[in-house]
Amino acid sequence: MPLEPFFSGAGIDRADALRARPGEIAALARRSDALTLSWSDGAPALDEDGRLRWEKLDDLPPLFLGLEGGSPRFSALADGTVPLGPRAHFALLGQLDASDAPLFAAALSLANWHRRHGFCSACGVPTLANRGGWSRGCSECGAEHYPRVDPVVIMLAEHHGRVLLGRQPHYPPGRFSALAGFVEVGETIEAAVARELHEEAGIRVHAVTYLASQPWPFPSSLMIGAHAVALDDRLTVDTTELDDARWFTRAEVIAALAAEAGAAFLPPPRFAIARTLLDRWADGLK
Amino acid sequence: MPLEPFFSGAGIDRADALRARPGEIAALARRSDALTLSWSDGAPALDEDGRLRWEKLDDLPPLFLGLEGGSPRFSALADGTVPLGPRAHFALLGQLDASDAPLFAAALSLANWHRRHGFCSACGVPTLANRGGWSRGCSECGAEHYPRVDPVVIMLAEHHGRVLLGRQPHYPPGRFSALAGFVEVGETIEAAVARELHEEAGIRVHAVTYLASQPWPFPSSLMIGAHAVALDDRLTVDTTELDDARWFTRAEVIAALAAEAGAAFLPPPRFAIARTLLDRWADGLK
Repeated sequence: MPLEPFFSGAGIDRADALRARPGEIAALARRSDALTLSWSDGAPALDEDGRLRWEKLDDLPPLFLGLEGGSPRFSALADGTVPLGPRAHFALLGQLDASDAPLFAAALSLANWHRRHGFCSACGVPTLANRGGWSRGCSECGAEHYPRVDPVVIMLAEHHGRVLLGRQPHYPPGRFSALAGFVEVGETIEAAVARELHEEAGIRVHAVTYLASQPWPFPSSLMIGAHAVALDDRLTVDTTELDDARWFTRAEVIAALAAEAGAAFLPPPRFAIARTLLDRWADGLK
Repeated sequence: MPLEPFFSGAGIDRADALRARPGEIAALARRSDALTLSWSDGAPALDEDGRLRWEKLDDLPPLFLGLEGGSPRFSALADGTVPLGPRAHFALLGQLDASDAPLFAAALSLANWHRRHGFCSACGVPTLANRGGWSRGCSECGAEHYPRVDPVVIMLAEHHGRVLLGRQPHYPPGRFSALAGFVEVGETIEAAVARELHEEAGIRVHAVTYLASQPWPFPSSLMIGAHAVALDDRLTVDTTELDDARWFTRAEVIAALAAEAGAAFLPPPRFAIARTLLDRWADGLK
């Protein structure tokens, strides 16, 4: 069984059929075992063990997250504070228990989406949350808007036993990671992998293979991990996107993952799918 | 080499670095070899050979599609007519040359997105197209909005040599196809496959495998094709989503794909990724 990304797993039962039945959601909220997510600094709050923190409900919160072992779970739209932003949240991810990661991601993405989508994109009037917080409806033009999930390809290009990694300007010193970019309209996953590698590193690839996926709630990406075989190793780095891009040997990657002194680079953290891709590649799983 | 979905391929060079340089885009539009897409009934127009139809430019169209063999390609935001809707467009897809399919999908998805996103979802004021039509910016709150690409899982569940197919209410008589559903926030591709099969057919699955992907411009999905192994074959069909769902043997699928008289069902059309998944499954490729 290959290594799984950090944000994997079913999470709770989303009980999506209930979303269309507001009376039943309201009844669930009145149950004594109903709980609502705690928020802190614009993100779901964690206890000392890295588990999500839950509270008793005072009233009906706008988001119905689902059923956890039969117990109804809800959430507010964050806590009204200005979110700390991705970098502070990354510190939180270092403590998050993997079993709560899918629900953490769902709640954070949903709350951020509501905050950025209070108005109808088709006609400009305010919208209202529907379906237990899983859509927003426009009373003016009738449009129904659903939360965004933005597919992103993230890939290891390989050439004769070396792997291509790059540095984004905001990375901590020494960090290299897999190249990535948004899938655009009209593209397959495989075409997006080839286009992004050509745009960012100037290489042509073939034999694109899907490896794994994970949600990434900053704000609401679906990271799609892939492997590609590069036709040659001459790089033309797009310096508007990347500080640097280089080929690394398997020995260099293994040393970096083991955090050896003098390793060639600092690898991505365990909650990034790029780390899972590198772990698998180091194990020879491609 | 396994069969590829209809909407596969690189399409034209999107030349995305130019999107940030409006002066260069305007200069490209003045070139004698610049062309703009023809539209008819809200979709890109086709000539008799199923190729996209192009015209000379009068002024600078809002969408910069890229470079085709060096020749600049543009598009209007459709033709201002009310679109005929997906069913009429399916007839068009039956004539569309596969080599033009990625560009057809990109242009149609982009045009539909602009039509539904004239206002800022964060503050409600009108937005303006930016970056050669690849984003819309809000002059009031500064938000930049990008075209939606909505990931959808579409999957063949298999149990002891039989495959699960379902009927949506709007299908033509006899049609069965792969089950499908939108990936939600907080989910991996694999978790979405398992959730949708449980919601729509009541089955539990394991061993979810990625097979292929294709864009689907109605309005802007990324179809992600997968295979899953069902733990048992007892179905509980969600009749709010499906008219019916049934298990079919490989012999039944092969007969249906060959359009044999008396075949158990009518298969999906060649431009649907479900057809590619069934073609591969019939070939024993999973």
